[in-house]
Amino acid sequence: MKAAILAPVAWRTPPVHYGPWEQMASNLTENLVKQGIDVTLFASADAITTAKLNAVVKLGYETDKNQDAKVLECLHISNLMENANEFDIIHNHFDFLPLSYSKLIKPPMITTIHGFSSEKILAVYQKYNAHSNYVSISDANRHASLNYLATVFNGLNLNEFEFNEIPEDYLLFFGRIHPDKGTAEAIEIAQRANKKLIIAGIIQDKSYFDECVKPHLNDKITFIEAAGPTLRNQLMGKALALLHPINFEEPFGLSVVESMLCGTPVIAFNKGSMPELIKNNENGFLVANVNEALEAIQDIQKIDRQTCCDLANHKFSAKKMTDKYIMLYYKILSKN
Amino acid sequence: MKAAILAPVAWRTPPVHYGPWEQMASNLTENLVKQGIDVTLFASADAITTAKLNAVVKLGYETDKNQDAKVLECLHISNLMENANEFDIIHNHFDFLPLSYSKLIKPPMITTIHGFSSEKILAVYQKYNAHSNYVSISDANRHASLNYLATVFNGLNLNEFEFNEIPEDYLLFFGRIHPDKGTAEAIEIAQRANKKLIIAGIIQDKSYFDECVKPHLNDKITFIEAAGPTLRNQLMGKALALLHPINFEEPFGLSVVESMLCGTPVIAFNKGSMPELIKNNENGFLVANVNEALEAIQDIQKIDRQTCCDLANHKFSAKKMTDKYIMLYYKILSKN
Repeated sequence: MKAAILAPVAWRTPPVHYGPWEQMASNLTENLVKQGIDVTLFASADAITTAKLNAVVKLGYETDKNQDAKVLECLHISNLMENANEFDIIHNHFDFLPLSYSKLIKPPMITTIHGFSSEKILAVYQKYNAHSNYVSISDANRHASLNYLATVFNGLNLNEFEFNEIPEDYLLFFGRIHPDKGTAEAIEIAQRANKKLIIAGIIQDKSYFDECVKPHLNDKITFIEAAGPTLRNQLMGKALALLHPINFEEPFGLSVVESMLCGTPVIAFNKGSMPELIKNNENGFLVANVNEALEAIQDIQKIDRQTCCDLANHKFSAKKMTDKYIMLYYKILSKN
Repeated sequence: MKAAILAPVAWRTPPVHYGPWEQMASNLTENLVKQGIDVTLFASADAITTAKLNAVVKLGYETDKNQDAKVLECLHISNLMENANEFDIIHNHFDFLPLSYSKLIKPPMITTIHGFSSEKILAVYQKYNAHSNYVSISDANRHASLNYLATVFNGLNLNEFEFNEIPEDYLLFFGRIHPDKGTAEAIEIAQRANKKLIIAGIIQDKSYFDECVKPHLNDKITFIEAAGPTLRNQLMGKALALLHPINFEEPFGLSVVESMLCGTPVIAFNKGSMPELIKNNENGFLVANVNEALEAIQDIQKIDRQTCCDLANHKFSAKKMTDKYIMLYYKILSKN
């Protein structure tokens, strides 16, 4: 089977630090190659892959901000579309714009919807609802107006995460610094629990950082910017718990799974995909508010870190994700 | 011949007041119909046309700003592309994005480049340079890296403009309030010439308006916002001269031609397309700076207003533009 994977061109595939869509496009691509699929990855030219790489964009528009995103997007997408007939299937990880080319090419397209940036983009998904094959990354992220082929959880490369049995005495916040992610709530939890907190992530909302994060930084509440894989492993593995007090219906929480893969339980506000990722009392706690998060910290020793890791290994491996996608590819091809 | 005209979906086609690209798409469409061409106009649903209208966007994204332009654009463009095979030729007035679909459809595409919003968009035009048929709206607006089929001047509906032989004693500025258009320079010219000035146009740069225009408004320097066709006719026809002291390489100056069609000479800074629109000393003056503009005002009576109008009638009619485009359509079809 010849498959084309269309990655975004915001960041490198795989990303240097932040870039969850590119990360998933990469994890899938590399594992498809391992499964013997003939894969061409369409990504920015700095991509690292064992697949064939077809790139017309040198650097992503978030990597080199002196570029016009719309220009890069249409050059990148059209490059795949103009070569579409070489492939049996096109797997789109690039949001809604590629859908608008999908009726002009021969091979079927499967689209993983990594999230809805706004209600306004729904109109495009609705237009191609009958034609396209949508995959949600959690049941929680499904939109009632759309048809889905399946939910396929994001899958991670297990060898990138190291289990650590005995944690140190600090809490971790790992993610974009943005009100959605609840950085301020994480700080409140740590302060009231009288625990150390390490905050790691790119600053996506500068004024939120300046107003709600920066004033609280001290010896106990520390901030490091984005962490690459090695530091991430270390930070996650040694944490007592990951705090994930989100304020939005998160489609998926990569850091939640990454943390569990290191054996570190997660205390998350029970929104969006969280109940699909966390088994309450088994690999973390689903809580409603800061007070319940404080109770969970009291109970954190009740979570067996090995079980926490094993559950995540079983459910969220890149291998498992890839096998499910290959099954879906054949399902689509058998219909055509 | 079956032709599809792809208009932008920023404003209505034709626009209520501002919207030069939509205006040209409309002028061409209506005149193609008059010439017996089977035309389908792809525009927003509020478009007014004698052609067939195919619309999937209700209101333009500038008309109703609570919309996502990118979503509207891809729905609008893909709607044409998915129906492309019904047409012999596609005429694109919608910037670079439609080019990225052009190799996926059968009929040839001709693209009028109404201007380059930035150097960054050139990459798309360059990619489709050999494949597409580019038309410039002035020789001045041609980019050295691109091949062009022809230059076709914008054409206006002559019956919309009324010749006025005897002007009143005021100067007119007509255009977007933006540093590019030289509103501040027009004010300086009027002040130093001790003439009344009427400024008409949409405020595109609010801080420029507040800093460089608003403080000068008084009995002699007056401002009205956008003027529709009737008021425009009146304002232009009665003006002593149109001031057009632009600070950029303007691809075309619609208001310059509109003014001349009313018999009103134009005093323009000699940049961009101006020498293609204005015959110095015949229907206006090409000047280098404010001082030269002041001299031109002294000489304004030397311009015969009837000649000014006749020259514009001859060169910038929608009929002439349309005939030229029909010739180009047949030229393209004869190659295919």
